[in-house]
Amino acid sequence: MPPRPVRAQCYMSECKAVCLVSGGMDSATCLAVAGSEGFSCHALTFDYGQRHVHELNAARTLVEKLGAAEHKIVTIDLRAFGGSALTDAIDVPKDQPLEGRDSGIPVTYVPARNTILLSYALAWAEVLGAWDIFIGVNAVDYSGYPDCRPAYIDAYERMANLATKAAVEGDRRMTIHAPLISLTKVDIIRRGLALGVDYAWTHSCYDPASDGRACGRCDACRIRRAGFEQASVADPTDYVS
Amino acid sequence: MPPRPVRAQCYMSECKAVCLVSGGMDSATCLAVAGSEGFSCHALTFDYGQRHVHELNAARTLVEKLGAAEHKIVTIDLRAFGGSALTDAIDVPKDQPLEGRDSGIPVTYVPARNTILLSYALAWAEVLGAWDIFIGVNAVDYSGYPDCRPAYIDAYERMANLATKAAVEGDRRMTIHAPLISLTKVDIIRRGLALGVDYAWTHSCYDPASDGRACGRCDACRIRRAGFEQASVADPTDYVS
Repeated sequence: MPPRPVRAQCYMSECKAVCLVSGGMDSATCLAVAGSEGFSCHALTFDYGQRHVHELNAARTLVEKLGAAEHKIVTIDLRAFGGSALTDAIDVPKDQPLEGRDSGIPVTYVPARNTILLSYALAWAEVLGAWDIFIGVNAVDYSGYPDCRPAYIDAYERMANLATKAAVEGDRRMTIHAPLISLTKVDIIRRGLALGVDYAWTHSCYDPASDGRACGRCDACRIRRAGFEQASVADPTDYVS
Repeated sequence: MPPRPVRAQCYMSECKAVCLVSGGMDSATCLAVAGSEGFSCHALTFDYGQRHVHELNAARTLVEKLGAAEHKIVTIDLRAFGGSALTDAIDVPKDQPLEGRDSGIPVTYVPARNTILLSYALAWAEVLGAWDIFIGVNAVDYSGYPDCRPAYIDAYERMANLATKAAVEGDRRMTIHAPLISLTKVDIIRRGLALGVDYAWTHSCYDPASDGRACGRCDACRIRRAGFEQASVADPTDYVS
């Protein structure tokens, strides 16, 4: 897939974008894409009661390496409501086959997570005077997550344009960019490498060891590993098994 | 305006709803409406860097008095982004005429606030297995706030039904109820009194004195005062001036 054309207005004046950065491969690639399109990126990371800090450290590293105008880390407490293996004391599933599993939504799904994260991004965009928000959702590898689908992103964008002072008073539209939404993991890796991403900066594992090494067995590790194998690229990750 | 008919399914089994409760008159009335419609209310209040704790105390009081299955108070830091007189160190405007002011959005507007609050409500609803969310927004007195309008609520509901596991896997729809959206303050006061709300439990002032008394001069106080006057009902509020 060819890269998206650079938007003309990004060269007319400074064009700010809020970019959601989790610390994973997809958000690293998404940040690189936003930068390559000429946006001045305001990176936004959440500490939402993840079980581990490795993801946050990865977010700090990759924002520093890829560059951004600013990086905010906001604490939100999704554990207040529970409901996910990533925020509750539910075991993260291991060794699940990636192919042929049923179409159910995985227990690692965090209720309304992307809706909450995009809402903070929208608030910040409004304060910054930014009209563009980047989110690295992907509908291919995470097909079980309802809030990673194009129809969801379109509905969010429509709502955002009714929600904000800027959109009501201004003559411009808020755009939610999801440049990875239809890419495979192989496409994402190739795109990121072409844009200078070193995936050693990123963290994917849902259940890392205490020394930070990836478990190699959760869904996120398995999707990551398979992506590097299929792309015929060396995986820089240090796995436990 | 006659009360909405009671929804039939609320008598078929326990019908849970998440109700946003700020501590003001509108959310108190909204909670009373939800209860009167047969819902088991799960009240949700946010501590979002308000300048004062009187609003939170009012929320606790009115939930206790009106009754709810549960009350969660979640801390969120909207000050991280700034952009409003309610979260920043901007002076709250005083003595502004309520009639004939320009149609601009007031400086007390908090960027994307309702979008963020509804997103947390959506997460909790999904975890609870609730299909109904109540928010006490009002398009009449707060006509300058984009996220208090019917078109916004409709767009949010549409997005919510694409965002969540429950909506994707289930055969029911998430409903965002905004029962006060087209009521005047007089209508709201009359409706609440008929449902047993004592407005002494509520707090409206944007800039209360250190002893908790309402300033009497900010927009919220002036709208509140005018509402009681027009409804020919004694205002239980203790104003500074």
